[in-house]
Order: sequence, then structure tokens, then C-alpha cells
Amino acid sequence: MKKKLGAQTLVYPTPVLIVATYDADNTPNAMNVAWGGICSSVPPCIQISIREDRKTYQNILEKKAFTINIPSVSNMKEADYFGLASGKEENKFLKTGLTAQKADEVDAPYIEEFPMALICEVIQTSSVGSHIQIVGEIKNVIANEDILGEDGSIAIAKLKPLSFNPSTTTYDLISESVGQAFQEGMYYK
Amino acid sequence: MKKKLGAQTLVYPTPVLIVATYDADNTPNAMNVAWGGICSSVPPCIQISIREDRKTYQNILEKKAFTINIPSVSNMKEADYFGLASGKEENKFLKTGLTAQKADEVDAPYIEEFPMALICEVIQTSSVGSHIQIVGEIKNVIANEDILGEDGSIAIAKLKPLSFNPSTTTYDLISESVGQAFQEGMYYK
Repeated sequence: MKKKLGAQTLVYPTPVLIVATYDADNTPNAMNVAWGGICSSVPPCIQISIREDRKTYQNILEKKAFTINIPSVSNMKEADYFGLASGKEENKFLKTGLTAQKADEVDAPYIEEFPMALICEVIQTSSVGSHIQIVGEIKNVIANEDILGEDGSIAIAKLKPLSFNPSTTTYDLISESVGQAFQEGMYYK
Repeated sequence: MKKKLGAQTLVYPTPVLIVATYDADNTPNAMNVAWGGICSSVPPCIQISIREDRKTYQNILEKKAFTINIPSVSNMKEADYFGLASGKEENKFLKTGLTAQKADEVDAPYIEEFPMALICEVIQTSSVGSHIQIVGEIKNVIANEDILGEDGSIAIAKLKPLSFNPSTTTYDLISESVGQAFQEGMYYK
């Protein structure tokens, strides 16, 4: 049986993106963003959607740069905290003890202790409903060597990233590959 | 040790969104979209990014509507096939035997056999790099009763959705909750 759940922001998977920025005084901040995803292949771009009143939005206007840090399950406490506190009231890097490392490519910090970061330069902003859409061109991707497979690709069983369930507000684990894209569907060709 | 992987479209999780539309003659089509995500809370909106030459883009221009169908692991073959074939050359619903069910709210079909669908009306399009950004307002969410928990929320262990790994081009399984959002981070408050 099908059931209508109403007009809700429910999609699976929903990401857990930790967006790190500097303010005008170069104090680092980080927030937890669930609304976002890749939006262009050439050039490689990612879009995140945040509310206008966020500290991170002010920082992005100031520096035209941000990083997207991907938490592993072992970073869950910190990732969740970044969504509970505001950078207007707390220095979240001091509270967590995490290291804000200046990126080489842009004027934004990445989180040294997280396994992976996308280094982004802001190329476009626009508005949809309650949120500002920020498009960042991905200038580089930084990864810990210990999340890479033998061929240099990112191994999901080593990265162990989180997915957010907006319906139950849980963090869900991704750690197991179950099929190969562009092969499974050959059954129908 | 950190390693620089270069400017690549790598984010975790990346979704597996099956976008279903009608063409001018009401023939249903479906494609597999990895670039997309929620982009506004009020009104609830989702953005998908597709290339201009896709049949789906023509259909969206024509009907101003689409649905996002979320595959479970049991729908993987069909989901992957939707990314292998073009609606310009094949009737993908006929090939897979799946049912295109007209949505009540908009002029687009959803996939009856998939566990969940977002019913969307197009409210905005724009361009970033190689892709057209299409924003759909979510008018309703339809779910199979068998993916719902006792409280009516979507149970990840029942939905068993897929995540795409762009680095290894694998489909990865999400089936296990490992923490509660807005609670894990209280450790630092």
C-alpha cells in the first residue's frame, strides 16, 4: 500500500556536510549542512543551501571560499555538535579541539582530523525559498591516505561516511558496496 | 598523511535519484541522476542537475514536473539501467516492465514498484557549468507502508537505499542507524 506523507524534505541519502570557513578576523567556524550536493561536472561544482542569518553565510560573503569536510562515523560527535552550536556564540574549533588547517587553494580552513575535504571557491549565489544557494567550484579534494584503496580510489569500507535520515533524525552508516554502476543494469540491455 | 586528489566531483554520500517524467505524447521516461539534493526547507524543494541534451530535460521543459524515485537495494538493476539507456532510443519502462503511475499532484509519473517518490513541480531553472539546475517544489511524498516504522517515520533498515561512490562507481548500502542527530553533539555543549 502507498501512503502520502505530505510535502516534506525527505530524500535518501541526505548528506552530512561540515562546511568550514573563516570570518573577517580569520577565526575558523564550521556548520553542519544537510542540504547540498554536486551540481556540475565541468567545472566540478558543489552546491550547499544555508539560511541567510548563519555565521557561515557572512563568512562566505567575506572570503568567497569554504571547504566541505566529510565525517567518518568516528567523527559523529563533532559533526553533530557543529549543527547544535552557532559560531556567533561559540568557537566550535576551540570547543572540540579540532584543528582548522588553512587550505592552500582558497581562504578557508579544512578540518585536519576529518578524513576528507573538498576545497571550494564560491562562484555563484542565488535564493530559493528559505535558503541561499551557494555554488562552490571544487579546486581540490584532500583525503587521508588511509581511506584510499590500492588503486588510489576512495574505499567506502575505509571512509565509513554518514548519511542523515531527516524522518528519524538519525545518522546512518555507509560501509558496504553492493553493486557496480554501469554493469548491474546491463541485464536490461 | 593527506593526499591531494585534484579537482573532482567526490562527495559522500552521493544520491541515486531516479527522475521520472512524461514527454509531450505522455510517454514516460526515467533517468538516473547523481547530482542533486534538498535545497530549501520552506517551501520544501529539491534541486537536480542534468545535462541540457537529455530527454528528461526536454520533458521537464514541456511538463514543468518530475518525480524523484528512491531505489531500495532490490531495485538496483533497474536504477542502474535507467543510467545506461537514453529515453531517446529506448522505452525504459517497457524494457524493465516497471509501472509508470501518473501522480495526482503534477503531470509526471512515479514508479509504482519503487518504495518512495517525491512529487515535484518545477519552480526554477538556471545554469552552472556543464549542467542545468532544476529546482522542484516537493508537493507530496509517497511511500510504501512497508518502509515505515511504527511511528510513521521512514525506517532506514526497511528502505535500504543506495548511495553512489563516484570514485569506485559502486552502489553502497545504507541500512543501519548509528547515532541520533541533535544528541550526539551534546557531549560538547
